[in-house]
Amino acid sequence: MNRRFLLIRRPHGSPAPDDFALVETAMPALPPGGLIIRNHYASLDPAQRGWMDDAPSYMPPIPLGDAVRAATLGVVHASDNPAFVPGDWVRGAHALEDYTAVPAGSFTRSIDIDAVDRPTLYLSALGGNAMTAYFGLLDIAKPQPGETLLVTGAAGGVGSIVGQIAKIVGCRTIGIAGGSEKCDRLLQDFGFDAAIDYKGKPVADLAEEVREIAPGGLDMLFENVGGTVMDAALLNLAQGARVVLCGLISEYNAPERIGIRNLWQVLVQRASIHGMIVADYIPRFAEAADDIRRWLAEGKLHVEEDVQEGLENAYPAFMRLFSGANRGKQILKIV
Amino acid sequence: MNRRFLLIRRPHGSPAPDDFALVETAMPALPPGGLIIRNHYASLDPAQRGWMDDAPSYMPPIPLGDAVRAATLGVVHASDNPAFVPGDWVRGAHALEDYTAVPAGSFTRSIDIDAVDRPTLYLSALGGNAMTAYFGLLDIAKPQPGETLLVTGAAGGVGSIVGQIAKIVGCRTIGIAGGSEKCDRLLQDFGFDAAIDYKGKPVADLAEEVREIAPGGLDMLFENVGGTVMDAALLNLAQGARVVLCGLISEYNAPERIGIRNLWQVLVQRASIHGMIVADYIPRFAEAADDIRRWLAEGKLHVEEDVQEGLENAYPAFMRLFSGANRGKQILKIV
Repeated sequence: MNRRFLLIRRPHGSPAPDDFALVETAMPALPPGGLIIRNHYASLDPAQRGWMDDAPSYMPPIPLGDAVRAATLGVVHASDNPAFVPGDWVRGAHALEDYTAVPAGSFTRSIDIDAVDRPTLYLSALGGNAMTAYFGLLDIAKPQPGETLLVTGAAGGVGSIVGQIAKIVGCRTIGIAGGSEKCDRLLQDFGFDAAIDYKGKPVADLAEEVREIAPGGLDMLFENVGGTVMDAALLNLAQGARVVLCGLISEYNAPERIGIRNLWQVLVQRASIHGMIVADYIPRFAEAADDIRRWLAEGKLHVEEDVQEGLENAYPAFMRLFSGANRGKQILKIV
Repeated sequence: MNRRFLLIRRPHGSPAPDDFALVETAMPALPPGGLIIRNHYASLDPAQRGWMDDAPSYMPPIPLGDAVRAATLGVVHASDNPAFVPGDWVRGAHALEDYTAVPAGSFTRSIDIDAVDRPTLYLSALGGNAMTAYFGLLDIAKPQPGETLLVTGAAGGVGSIVGQIAKIVGCRTIGIAGGSEKCDRLLQDFGFDAAIDYKGKPVADLAEEVREIAPGGLDMLFENVGGTVMDAALLNLAQGARVVLCGLISEYNAPERIGIRNLWQVLVQRASIHGMIVADYIPRFAEAADDIRRWLAEGKLHVEEDVQEGLENAYPAFMRLFSGANRGKQILKIV
């Protein structure tokens, strides 16, 4: 039998338990030239919320009645592809289910499980979040030593890595997160130079707090949040600032798009905003992995994983991303 | 005597007549190493509204009690700078007043009045608006032949030139303007391939209208307006679209910043937004002027000027920019 966590209704605003159903179905058939993957670990990401909407995006919406799409780590259960044999560990865009049938020509790739302390590193330090941090910062923001970077959602799976890579390349880092506990972690675990708690603060107060810490302005903004947090950051852009638009978690569950009010600062500061989707960098993932493995070995990069257990807990585990309950990269252990 | 159009109160929202005062003062003294300019024509631009606010921007706010800053064409009245002699025509960041005292080291530059049919060309086809259009399009958006460009505020001083340069380099052009008369002019006078009247249309309807004309999406957006017009355009970005953020006239007189709701489309389409201030391109103006003079001579570029007369009419002439009454580049003839 195959347990599958299905999307059965498109969420309106915040996803509700009844938008999903955990069902048992027959094992999928092996597609010609394809694979059947036994999923072990799934990455839970804010981007999945976007795929639940019926809206134009960089990937088609998850069809209603289909299992929720997710990056997973798993083991090849059956193969009609000579490049894979049963027992191989793989990573790919699969789904929240025990077994996924992968058609020929997919992005599923083998991973070297012996090269890491634990498999979940392929979803955290070597996963999509880390690739997002690496390419968003180094390829889009192009940090120069001595520049100042503000990261929003700084304690999250992407933000915490962005801050650390920025330190490695010689930048000053400021992180914004929700709550004093997360702010403590920014300073102690992730090496940020300064931390700001956004909770309960209007834009003007938050902007003033940023200004006190970065009176010369922000050379770079790595944006994971949007809304009032981004608006406060925009009021502090330095001339020529680069904004990496990586996520807008504050509005993914809002009934209407929130957007930003302070776009005019992008104009007057000749700043730029760059939308980024990590899938565009898949051909270059190996290049990032080399650097990240070295930084891990040198103790320069610290990653945290928040592993929740059981496919039956997929809904509460996913919602931790939006309540801010997650501590590090949110992962679901399926088996 | 020197008549001066002063800013005496910072506008709240839309400028009111009482925010300004036309006064007569003594002639200014000649600054050491500087000039006194007799202003003949002033450029009226939406950007001036921004300078009236006490807000961080790319130029300091106009001080209360000072004449309203403006690009003007004038004649040197007195000079303590050997590079200028009385009678020379010049262009610079002066003010809405009969005479401006220009300190040493300013941006005031000589212009060749004999090289043009009429002096005002230095404020229209060869003025800041045209430079904005030229560099914003060619240097920031980097159009490729066959690409589709949407211009908002397309009948204005900048937009009408952007559309024409884009046609010269082989793009398909869509213009958005307010009212059927302006839309007719987009097609007949400025050679746009399609025109859309935004008046009275909600975002969704306007977005649908853009989609019908550009089903493949917008490769470039030249944004002069902001607000709902920009939000409708954002819903039609093609993957990798470049947005030149040149102006946000819809919000300059709003009591609060409006911003945009559809920033998420910049993310999912991996688009980029680039703030631009034409003053950054001053060192390259000559390069643009060479191209523009050639296009004018070849009949490829059509510019319209809306010349209002008299310093005493500075307020109503300026407000034409915001009511949409202006027909082409708004100019005030001072003498």
